[in-house]
Amino acid sequence: MFRLMEKPYLLFLGDIRDDLSAKTARGIADWRPGDCVGQYRMAGCGVSLGLADLDFAEARERGARTLVVGVANAGGRIPGHWEGDLVRAVEVGLDIASGLHERLNDLPGLARAARASGRRLFDIRRPEGPLPVGTGEKRPGKRILTVGTDCSVGKKYTTLALADEMRRRGIPADFRATGQTGIFIAGEGICVDAVPADFISGVAERLSPAADPDHWDVVEGQGSLFHPSFAGVTLGLVHGAQPDFLVLCHEPGRESLRGLPGRSLPGLAECLDGHLAAARLTNPDVRAAGFSFNTRNLDPAKAERLRRETEAFWGLPCIDPVINGAGAIVDWLENQ
Amino acid sequence: MFRLMEKPYLLFLGDIRDDLSAKTARGIADWRPGDCVGQYRMAGCGVSLGLADLDFAEARERGARTLVVGVANAGGRIPGHWEGDLVRAVEVGLDIASGLHERLNDLPGLARAARASGRRLFDIRRPEGPLPVGTGEKRPGKRILTVGTDCSVGKKYTTLALADEMRRRGIPADFRATGQTGIFIAGEGICVDAVPADFISGVAERLSPAADPDHWDVVEGQGSLFHPSFAGVTLGLVHGAQPDFLVLCHEPGRESLRGLPGRSLPGLAECLDGHLAAARLTNPDVRAAGFSFNTRNLDPAKAERLRRETEAFWGLPCIDPVINGAGAIVDWLENQ
Repeated sequence: MFRLMEKPYLLFLGDIRDDLSAKTARGIADWRPGDCVGQYRMAGCGVSLGLADLDFAEARERGARTLVVGVANAGGRIPGHWEGDLVRAVEVGLDIASGLHERLNDLPGLARAARASGRRLFDIRRPEGPLPVGTGEKRPGKRILTVGTDCSVGKKYTTLALADEMRRRGIPADFRATGQTGIFIAGEGICVDAVPADFISGVAERLSPAADPDHWDVVEGQGSLFHPSFAGVTLGLVHGAQPDFLVLCHEPGRESLRGLPGRSLPGLAECLDGHLAAARLTNPDVRAAGFSFNTRNLDPAKAERLRRETEAFWGLPCIDPVINGAGAIVDWLENQ
Repeated sequence: MFRLMEKPYLLFLGDIRDDLSAKTARGIADWRPGDCVGQYRMAGCGVSLGLADLDFAEARERGARTLVVGVANAGGRIPGHWEGDLVRAVEVGLDIASGLHERLNDLPGLARAARASGRRLFDIRRPEGPLPVGTGEKRPGKRILTVGTDCSVGKKYTTLALADEMRRRGIPADFRATGQTGIFIAGEGICVDAVPADFISGVAERLSPAADPDHWDVVEGQGSLFHPSFAGVTLGLVHGAQPDFLVLCHEPGRESLRGLPGRSLPGLAECLDGHLAAARLTNPDVRAAGFSFNTRNLDPAKAERLRRETEAFWGLPCIDPVINGAGAIVDWLENQ
């Protein structure tokens, strides 16, 4: 279920033309530059990640193990004119991993070439069975989960910042990825929004297995209990992750829920209470560990004032991880 | 997405040996005897629904349109020795509908035979794309949803009893099926627990589309917000169904959540409050319309006392639909 991709990566950009389509590849290059030997661009590609342009053989020589198709596409299809290049990649000795909806394994020519050269094709949006049903049973190890007032408020960024900060301090910690970009960064994980609904909490349990009592799993959240499109995903993840601590992520000033113009976000108190109440079902001792604000659209002085006021009001750390890092929350956790 | 199966049905029992494996077929025969022309049993079958044993040609002569594979099976597989009979069924002119995990459409011989004879194969556990994402937008028509303190407490039974009672009174109402047996009974619907997690609320919206202001959709609930295995399914369904009224289903005396020995059920007040709070996200005016108790394991006098005490305490109707029917709740709804 949680297939481990081999690093380092060569990032495949195909012939995409706009930066938004390269969001996943850029996330990987930003967070794990050391895991990326370069980028591969086809004729007509209008985007660059600022990495070395390498062909497959050069990349292989520099150690690349997996070609990552980290691009978005209308409908998630694999354009027919990409297939020849993908076949060449496996022939040169690269595994391929893709986050597109259309499966690499469903391209007969590519699947055949991969088998012939002993390479693996990872379709990370497709869960591979059999999937587990959640049990709600408590397991050892410490867990922290990011939750949010909305989608796309910085949960992945916050989770990565927390996990990296913990590891920098020598605290045993793993980032547990639940979305596409996170999975490429971690090299493993599962897209919880793609599993059949019956198994959401079960895969969340499996994603964060029993561990040493002082080990931290830092689990990437998804959606929001207050987003009517995706709350089911969030609830299953909250129940399965069994967090000891929640960090509530928020973008101050955002006026509408993502994708739902006119529908306002919940207040912080309502949102935190709702997520804590839900989390208590599988971990009665769950607590809030602070707030993470995405303040990129705020005046910096105003953002800093808001951050301090939030800390004072709640008696909990409040960070913008891009500006402050996640140290304040890790400090707080080390004092519990 | 919501494929309409043609009735009447011939119920296929294969060579199953125990009654529990025939649960779905029995539910169809109990609720819609007029939709079932008979049963088809293979040599060695140890179960009978008390219907006429018919071969495919006889069933076709009596008007049967669809052969329903309404049996459960270890792992949800279609035994190899069934395939010959299924091929004969399509050759005789029957569509086939199955609730098993393994797809009829994945049996090459059967798929070929169905194409050749122009018959349809319905795999009702497999959602067919493209699936919609929920919007949370309010739509006209009235909606009532069953929720529960646990799985398997009588939500389907209660929903069917409510819808049938409304129609008997001439109230425009549709039963909206979200699980296997219900889908066979309705002839359409969607297994919400089988859709990818991102689409739970979206399919629930689609399942119960905009309708006349005085039309009722009576929506079959699934799982429970307080069941750690399946709460994500429940939450998406609650958000997508946008119920105006909830009926809380419960089995008094049950000691553990289904499948989770030792984990107790929530109290009625906690459970009702939790479901109402969740439902308010997409319908702030949602209210409770009463309780439905499954009292089969209680002494009848004790069950009746409990029912009356519950009504007195809450000021809302409380039924055991098997004993009392759903009239008391429909009475109450007509007075709102």
